[in-house]
Amino acid sequence: MKNLAVALLLFLSSFCYAQTSAEFQPASTNVWGAEYPRVDSAGRAEFRLKAPSATAVKLNFWSNSKLDMVKGADGVWTVTTPPLVPGLHYYNFDVDGVNANDLGSHAFYGGSRDASAIEIPEAGATYYLPQNVPHGAVREIWYMSKVTGTWRHAEMYPPPGYDTSSKMRYPVLYLQHGGGEDETGWIKQGHANFILDNLIASGNTKPMIIVMAYGYARRAGQVDPDMAGQPFGSPAMMKAMQDMAQVFEDDLTQALIPYVDANFRTIADRDHRAMAGLSMGGMQTFQVTFDHLDLFSYIGGFSGASGLLMTNAEKPNMKTAFHGALADPAAFSKRVHLLWIGVGTEEPPQMRTSILRLHTAFTDANVKHVFYESPGTSHEWQTWRRDLKDFAPRLFQ
Amino acid sequence: MKNLAVALLLFLSSFCYAQTSAEFQPASTNVWGAEYPRVDSAGRAEFRLKAPSATAVKLNFWSNSKLDMVKGADGVWTVTTPPLVPGLHYYNFDVDGVNANDLGSHAFYGGSRDASAIEIPEAGATYYLPQNVPHGAVREIWYMSKVTGTWRHAEMYPPPGYDTSSKMRYPVLYLQHGGGEDETGWIKQGHANFILDNLIASGNTKPMIIVMAYGYARRAGQVDPDMAGQPFGSPAMMKAMQDMAQVFEDDLTQALIPYVDANFRTIADRDHRAMAGLSMGGMQTFQVTFDHLDLFSYIGGFSGASGLLMTNAEKPNMKTAFHGALADPAAFSKRVHLLWIGVGTEEPPQMRTSILRLHTAFTDANVKHVFYESPGTSHEWQTWRRDLKDFAPRLFQ
Repeated sequence: MKNLAVALLLFLSSFCYAQTSAEFQPASTNVWGAEYPRVDSAGRAEFRLKAPSATAVKLNFWSNSKLDMVKGADGVWTVTTPPLVPGLHYYNFDVDGVNANDLGSHAFYGGSRDASAIEIPEAGATYYLPQNVPHGAVREIWYMSKVTGTWRHAEMYPPPGYDTSSKMRYPVLYLQHGGGEDETGWIKQGHANFILDNLIASGNTKPMIIVMAYGYARRAGQVDPDMAGQPFGSPAMMKAMQDMAQVFEDDLTQALIPYVDANFRTIADRDHRAMAGLSMGGMQTFQVTFDHLDLFSYIGGFSGASGLLMTNAEKPNMKTAFHGALADPAAFSKRVHLLWIGVGTEEPPQMRTSILRLHTAFTDANVKHVFYESPGTSHEWQTWRRDLKDFAPRLFQ
Repeated sequence: MKNLAVALLLFLSSFCYAQTSAEFQPASTNVWGAEYPRVDSAGRAEFRLKAPSATAVKLNFWSNSKLDMVKGADGVWTVTTPPLVPGLHYYNFDVDGVNANDLGSHAFYGGSRDASAIEIPEAGATYYLPQNVPHGAVREIWYMSKVTGTWRHAEMYPPPGYDTSSKMRYPVLYLQHGGGEDETGWIKQGHANFILDNLIASGNTKPMIIVMAYGYARRAGQVDPDMAGQPFGSPAMMKAMQDMAQVFEDDLTQALIPYVDANFRTIADRDHRAMAGLSMGGMQTFQVTFDHLDLFSYIGGFSGASGLLMTNAEKPNMKTAFHGALADPAAFSKRVHLLWIGVGTEEPPQMRTSILRLHTAFTDANVKHVFYESPGTSHEWQTWRRDLKDFAPRLFQ
């Protein structure tokens, strides 16, 4: 029977690669049975791709430069990296100019595609890994949005115990992915569920619901403008972006939050509602929360915060920045229970500069806030896992 | 700020392709903003890949033959298919011998990789699409398995209303993916949640929990045998497969079922427990249920059923086949509430033959069973969606 034969082959394909060096082991992000890519204890990683006809193959880490791969007599291209920073790194192969996934790696939605990524373990760090503690079973939500006119998919983390206590109600953190990612990112890439499981089990974090929305949205009936020929950053492009951001804001506040409060045991008031996001999601967080301080009282910007709401002036005018929400810093700091911003020490200079400038502006204006730096990490998921680990225990206390 | 600029670019990338033919539309399986692949109302599909340096590019549908793509002056390779059978089709590009995903398509785990796939709508069929009915919010389960010694991931569909009624208990269907797929397949590819939402809303299907396990397992401490040089179907390979199947059976019956019954509101007896699976999952279903008629009373084999349990003799000896479970057909038919097998009319001859042979053997031995044929479909997800639509209403009645 051909198909059972296929199943048999797949069952057994892993055995063909059973000879592993003691030092290098298959990455935890690999698919079942894939021996490559693999990682050693120093964080070095080995990659391979069979491409006998190719003339140039590169390994492209999105946060770093490209590495040339070397062709062997068997048509297999290989490369071993220097030790990599711990965390999850997106990458692809460049095969004579064609962007190819590594089929040995699971795919993670980033860069507006299902992309390869490799996990480099952080020695001694277990806070983002599954432990022998109660687990919240992440749920997939489908809600019909009158804003977009479509079914939309979101994910929801219920704290451990949500199912066994039928009366208890919980505060909610809305947690957003970055540009080119989607609502699956905080679980698949970020391990937000394991981070919260572990924090809650340790006793220093309040049990909470996390809702992860899809950050892209088109208004019902909207026809996308034709941007062909528009230079990057042009007024037409900026307007299109502002329009998109507004659709997301409306979907979140008019469709998703009412759905969540109607269907889950939330405490549906601003004192028990937080929002945070990474990169583009941080920008969206600042827009949504500063426009809706009636809905939110805890705010987090992970490697991205100001966006459209702050001018590019060297020293922003706090009277007018953020739609004027900070014009009276004392009143703002009294109303908002937590304003949190963070950045990795190895992020690109422009990103670091923008967050540090925001930190300075908040400090100068006496806006109470928390500023966190993730040592040694760049604009990647290890920074945002650490951000969540620092941010979540401060919520709803 | 570079990263907000990247986010902006991603926000707007879809606009660059805003000019669409009225006839062809982006496939529902595409990522946000991807104009290709696209589908017309006859089921024809257009694909494109930019690969200026390539010398030969093919489009490889896994259930069909390869189609040659044609290179344009701009270095973009294109092809338009004849009308395709409705349903979800796995595919990849073959670029000078390198297996490349289509980055315009979402990835679906199949063929032991995150693979591209395109959805061809079935005219008039809505049973597997989200409708304005109550939805069950699929959950991700992590359980520690003493059988494998690892954390294992499964998915669980609770029927609509599971959260609002805190006392109601439900029967459970264990539903398995095929070879090279994983526990995400029945939701992402199969839309099992929407199929059940719609069936339950129509009133002719009992509300039930569905649990979807990962079908691959290694026993704790197991060292994979070195199969290098072993010919396909060799005794060593058959033994390895039987060992693997047994580990899965032990994990399901000794770890997962106890976890599910302890953590969800199930009715934990054989009269309220079913199992079904597709292809390799059908084979596993027959092995697990025939070995454990104390645990299961409803059995479904979708395009795959007999596997290791039946000899390849032209007319199987029902006294010895299936570990002897059918030696007394009358007793078996009294004990098992439903035995269901199905196959698509366009499946490969060997698969059709094996299922038809099983149907004949059951009939000749007076084993009560349901036999279903999916018209016009092959060894693909549209067959299995239809199987579930026919199978689920027969459960727990």
